[in-house]
Amino acid sequence: MSKFYLFSADDLQNYIIRYFTKLNVPLVDAQIAAEVILSADLRGVDSHGIIRLNSYYGNRLRKGWINSQSPVTIVTETATTLTLDGGNGLGQVVSHYAMRRCIEKASLSGIAMVSMRSSNHYGIAGYYAMMALPHQMIGISFTNSQPLVAPTYGRKAMLGTNPIAVAVPTGKEKPFVLDMATSIVPIGRITVYEKASKEIPSGWGIDELGRVTSNPTSILQGGALMPLGGIDLMRGYKGYGLALLVDIFCGILSGGGIFGKEVDPHTERPAGTSHFFAAVRIDAFRPVDEFTRDMDGLIQQLRESPKAIDQDRIYIHGEKEFDKAEEYAMNGIPLLEKVVDELSRSGQEVGVDFDCRILGTIEK
Amino acid sequence: MSKFYLFSADDLQNYIIRYFTKLNVPLVDAQIAAEVILSADLRGVDSHGIIRLNSYYGNRLRKGWINSQSPVTIVTETATTLTLDGGNGLGQVVSHYAMRRCIEKASLSGIAMVSMRSSNHYGIAGYYAMMALPHQMIGISFTNSQPLVAPTYGRKAMLGTNPIAVAVPTGKEKPFVLDMATSIVPIGRITVYEKASKEIPSGWGIDELGRVTSNPTSILQGGALMPLGGIDLMRGYKGYGLALLVDIFCGILSGGGIFGKEVDPHTERPAGTSHFFAAVRIDAFRPVDEFTRDMDGLIQQLRESPKAIDQDRIYIHGEKEFDKAEEYAMNGIPLLEKVVDELSRSGQEVGVDFDCRILGTIEK
Repeated sequence: MSKFYLFSADDLQNYIIRYFTKLNVPLVDAQIAAEVILSADLRGVDSHGIIRLNSYYGNRLRKGWINSQSPVTIVTETATTLTLDGGNGLGQVVSHYAMRRCIEKASLSGIAMVSMRSSNHYGIAGYYAMMALPHQMIGISFTNSQPLVAPTYGRKAMLGTNPIAVAVPTGKEKPFVLDMATSIVPIGRITVYEKASKEIPSGWGIDELGRVTSNPTSILQGGALMPLGGIDLMRGYKGYGLALLVDIFCGILSGGGIFGKEVDPHTERPAGTSHFFAAVRIDAFRPVDEFTRDMDGLIQQLRESPKAIDQDRIYIHGEKEFDKAEEYAMNGIPLLEKVVDELSRSGQEVGVDFDCRILGTIEK
Repeated sequence: MSKFYLFSADDLQNYIIRYFTKLNVPLVDAQIAAEVILSADLRGVDSHGIIRLNSYYGNRLRKGWINSQSPVTIVTETATTLTLDGGNGLGQVVSHYAMRRCIEKASLSGIAMVSMRSSNHYGIAGYYAMMALPHQMIGISFTNSQPLVAPTYGRKAMLGTNPIAVAVPTGKEKPFVLDMATSIVPIGRITVYEKASKEIPSGWGIDELGRVTSNPTSILQGGALMPLGGIDLMRGYKGYGLALLVDIFCGILSGGGIFGKEVDPHTERPAGTSHFFAAVRIDAFRPVDEFTRDMDGLIQQLRESPKAIDQDRIYIHGEKEFDKAEEYAMNGIPLLEKVVDELSRSGQEVGVDFDCRILGTIEK
């Protein structure tokens, strides 16, 4: 059991805005970054939320490893494509710009793609994909990340957990939002098991010799995560291929760090993260109302299909996160006591009090 | 040990052309279909090659379940997008047309996407993706297929094995060609284990109650394949999400069979298969020579990275298939004795002698 304090999303968002502006981030940029970061907390993806405010962003802004002015420049532009240099700006700010431009181009051309280099950790990939939804477009977003995953038959982490996010408009149903790392689990999941002194399920990772291990420490010290699928017998080379695909559309198409190996948000230099965005206008293919009606049909067919023994619900991608966002918007976002302490401490360092009102406490 | 006869690719291709033209397929269309089918045999993907000539194509052409004239029509067209109706034509013929048009549009617009309904089994997805390579484009191809895969927590096959294929140009290295079903294994793999009375590795499929089983018969009789990833603990919902994505871009975007459930190439009616194609011009983003240089670098870094214990090679996607194609082009394509018998028999039914010259025999 751990103790959590509950905070309103608005309160936390305002705090993040004050925190970023104090670090010389322009107000409009701070608002964007705060919204993207909070969207992770609201959707229950704590690992990409406010918990990272100092380590991923604040600390790096203060040290000059992230450029607070987010000076995006255009490298190449056509009617349908854009290659951007993020100017080592805040990942959320430059990515929000990239996806806005992508949607704008798709409005005119039907489809558009943007590849961006020299960015930083951009939060949850799904946020940018979902930006397309109000425009009746399919949104796509990938990002590369620091090496944590070994290729099939390898033993060294060479690939990022390189997520793929795709958001698709629906009618009455909640949108389809796939937002998946191309590894089986993120590295944070391994840390959780290590801290709890628990064995991990066999297949999530390998040790320094490339052997499947259930010892979390072996993965964290010289080992690597396995790509989606896991071992060769279970077709892990497919997850490895998907991770490579993300690296190609992000790092290589943009001319950024050509490979996961060169991306690192934890060193004392610009992280060199690259992203990819795409938008697809539904009505370039067929009338929107027909498309969304069929999306609803697809979702309903799946939901109503027979359940496996001991299961009573089949989920659609994004559904759990939308439920959580509703719950947290109503009852408040739970933050661990030690996360609140850390927010207070890092706030003091910057000169901004973490004075969000505690709505309640829960144990879980 | 089984006995294989070796045939030259040219001989087999000419036979397929004669077979199709005898079934009223126009010569130019027969040439395309033969090339696509043979490309599967050459790449070692026998399951999508000449072995299916009668069952997937010839028999269905004769019964009128496939339209030999492949009358493609345009449903919606913009400068960057195309929605096509395949007119229940030969999958290879209408898909080759779709990808040609996609490449043509990308030449002019930078990127293009095509969604197609009312098609049939189109062979290997990778073929169409690879059509983009000589144009210095990234090629993408998806297809839906009949329901064989259960959603996470479900027990009924609701999704196809819905492959994703992406081909990316390189410089000196062989192109990156990812061509993967979004299930762990294809259904044919289960049949192989059943015929050999062998247990399958735990996790490939479920029985009729949705329980993981190692009995191939339980999967084939009322059970289902599992999506890439497998059980929930190993994140099979990601493979389930990828399969859904393919259904959305193929069946829903085109207005075809809205769901895997409605696609079936084995019933006595049009199969209702849908496909998706995309082409991305490299030079819309950055100079081609820089891109291909970095692709080579990426591949070399992976290949040279440390190997797991007992492994001596790390593969890039497509590499094994290119090696096989070289070997088969030189030494001939091996066909099982019983496949040759079946080709002779189905040829006689149509009135075309299977008279390809046997280059040799091998046992393996």
